[in-house]
Parts: sequence; structure tokens; C-alpha cells
Amino acid sequence: MKLYDWLIAPNPRRVRMFLAEKGIEVEMEQAAGPRDMDLATWFLELDPRRRVPLLVLDDGTHVGEAMAICRYFDAQQPEPNLFGREPLAVALIEMWERESEINCLQAGGEHVRNSHPAFKDRALPGYSEPTPQIAQLAERGKMRYYEFLSRAEAQLERHAYLAGEQFSAADITAFCAVDFWQKFKLPLGEEHTRLKAWHERIGQRPSATA
Amino acid sequence: MKLYDWLIAPNPRRVRMFLAEKGIEVEMEQAAGPRDMDLATWFLELDPRRRVPLLVLDDGTHVGEAMAICRYFDAQQPEPNLFGREPLAVALIEMWERESEINCLQAGGEHVRNSHPAFKDRALPGYSEPTPQIAQLAERGKMRYYEFLSRAEAQLERHAYLAGEQFSAADITAFCAVDFWQKFKLPLGEEHTRLKAWHERIGQRPSATA
Repeated sequence: MKLYDWLIAPNPRRVRMFLAEKGIEVEMEQAAGPRDMDLATWFLELDPRRRVPLLVLDDGTHVGEAMAICRYFDAQQPEPNLFGREPLAVALIEMWERESEINCLQAGGEHVRNSHPAFKDRALPGYSEPTPQIAQLAERGKMRYYEFLSRAEAQLERHAYLAGEQFSAADITAFCAVDFWQKFKLPLGEEHTRLKAWHERIGQRPSATA
Repeated sequence: MKLYDWLIAPNPRRVRMFLAEKGIEVEMEQAAGPRDMDLATWFLELDPRRRVPLLVLDDGTHVGEAMAICRYFDAQQPEPNLFGREPLAVALIEMWERESEINCLQAGGEHVRNSHPAFKDRALPGYSEPTPQIAQLAERGKMRYYEFLSRAEAQLERHAYLAGEQFSAADITAFCAVDFWQKFKLPLGEEHTRLKAWHERIGQRPSATA
């Protein structure tokens, strides 16, 4: 099997960090160089979804979506646990992971993809036809992103991690997103004291360098 | 515990259908009437996320996100299985469920929310501040929706269900979305012969009336 990766992008980083927490090693290939602004032509032709991360199994099956790839390995090696054990933990991790994906990772991407010059006519990942940027959408994405951060800040006032007292897949998604989007002028603010402490704490985990 | 539901909306329908497949009964309360165009004021004040479905546990914990609620019940009662057993089935169901949520349910919603007069200044669910419609985004959502349908059609040429030979949570998400958006001028086309057969077949399951 082979994991198609892209060192600079937040989505494949989620999988690398998840695998590092599990101590699982997988053969990886870079689908683009770290200074490229788009995936390599050969990769875009390899997979109809045109997105990383992508896991290609030995029988040729393509598995896309970061959390689907994580669940593949989690089903094989449940420990250390990152998706919860008891029904409530399972539910809260899934809730905060989805929230983090939709309103932190996607919303931040909505802002950056629709405003940064590097993404002109590539406002959506995964499409071969040009997709023009929408300025109003950049604003909407920013609003959604900071609304998520407010809710995460409130949650971290009561808990050590997003879904409770356990470090989980939800923290991985939110951490990779916050870490990436702050490079694109979506920084944590003065009001985000708990998020800053959480970000620093997670950044000290060995998996954060994966 | 209580499940806050809204009979006309596609997201809570996913949970009702999932519970019906499991044969699980939960006390439900409607967060808005079937002819309302927005959630009731008391519900909007009850939950900061301002979205259905919402599961409130006996200890007061709020669990939002349809699939998080489904996983809560799935962790308590794994059979009948809707999230896969073997690692590959787990991964493919998660992949197609996420694809169905992002590119079918959300993308169709992006179109409808940004074009239908009923959603003027309410282009996003879950916000108290007015969020104006973006006409270009309505087009983009439609493009993403039909691109998803093309990929689903290709998948259904090879498999009985979206993630393979097993009816799964991925089918529930895509079915509830397709069923709902076709009422808003996003119908299946002549080219979607497999999707039409799949839609009819799933519509005959007892859970489709939930």
C-alpha cells in the first residue's frame, strides 16, 4: 500500500499525525513538491478525486478522505485510542471532529481559497475546470472560522481537549487547520487564551512534527 | 434523553432513518413545525449550534452532527451494521459518507440556501446574524452536486450500494440529500439510470418512511 501525501497541506498532515500517534509506518509518496502550489499532473491523472491524502491499497483500491484513511488504520490497530471507547466519547469526538473539519478546516480553506492570489481560478480543490474565486465567500469563510474558534475557546475553558479530557482525532483536525490557516492571515486572537495554550501543548507532542 | 428533530429537513432524517434501520426508539421533539421555514425560537435559544438534529442526554450533554448521534447509538448497538466491520469496509463507508455529506448534502444545500427566496439573508444554517445569499455560490454548489452524482453513478455501475455491496450510513446520507434536493430543482437526470434504480430501491426500505 502507498499513502499519497503533500508535506505542506493541512489535510494529509492530519493522517501523518494520526499515524504517528499510533506508531504506524506506511510507505508514502509526495503528490507534489513542498514549494508547488498545485498537485503534480501525474497525481491528478491517477485519482479522479484529485485530492490528497489518498491511500492506494495493494489491490488497487483508492481510499480518499483523511478520516476514512485514519479509520482504516484504527480498525486494524485500535490503540492508542483516538476515536473514543464509550458511546458518549465516540459521539463527542465525532461531533467535534466534524465541527473541526467543516467549520475550521473547510471554513478557513473557504477564506484562503477565495482570497489568496495563488488560488486564482482554483477556488475549489479537486476540479479540472477553472473555479473562480468569490470575494463574498472569503468573508463568509472567515466569519465561520472565527465563530468556530469562539466555540472551541468556550469548550477548552471546561475541558483539556476539544472533545473532553482525551486527546482525539478532533484535536488533530483542528490543530492542523489552525496551524495552517494562521500562515494565511487567520491568526488566533488575544481572546483565544485557551486555544493558544491548547495549540502550544499539542505542538509539543512528537506527532506534531510528522 | 431526547432527540430534537425537524420532519421536513434532510439532516435529522438521516438520524431517523439510521435509528429505524437499527430498530431503536428514542423520544423525539419537533424543533419546528413541518410548514415552518426556520427553527422555533425556543430551540434556537436552547442550543448554541442552532441546528438539528440535536441529541440531549439525561445529564444535559448536547450531541450535534447527524453522524455523531448515529455513532452514539451504533456504539451501544452495533447490529445491524451500518458503518462496516472489516477495515476496508469501515474506510470505504466513511469515505463515501463524507463525500455524500460534503459534496451531495452540503453542496446541494449550498445551491438551495443561496438561491431560494425562502432563505434570503439566511444562506447559512445556525447563525443569528443575517448571512446574505451569494448567487455565484449557488452555481458552484450545483456544479459540485452534479459532479458528485456523476461519481456516484459510476460507483453504482460496479456496486449495489455507494460503499460496496452493503447498505450503509453512506447510502442514508446520499439518499436523504438526493430525495430532498430534487424538490428544489436539483433532480436526477436521464444519465443517472443507476442512481434512479438505487434511489427507488432504498425508497422501498421501511426506514425510508421514518
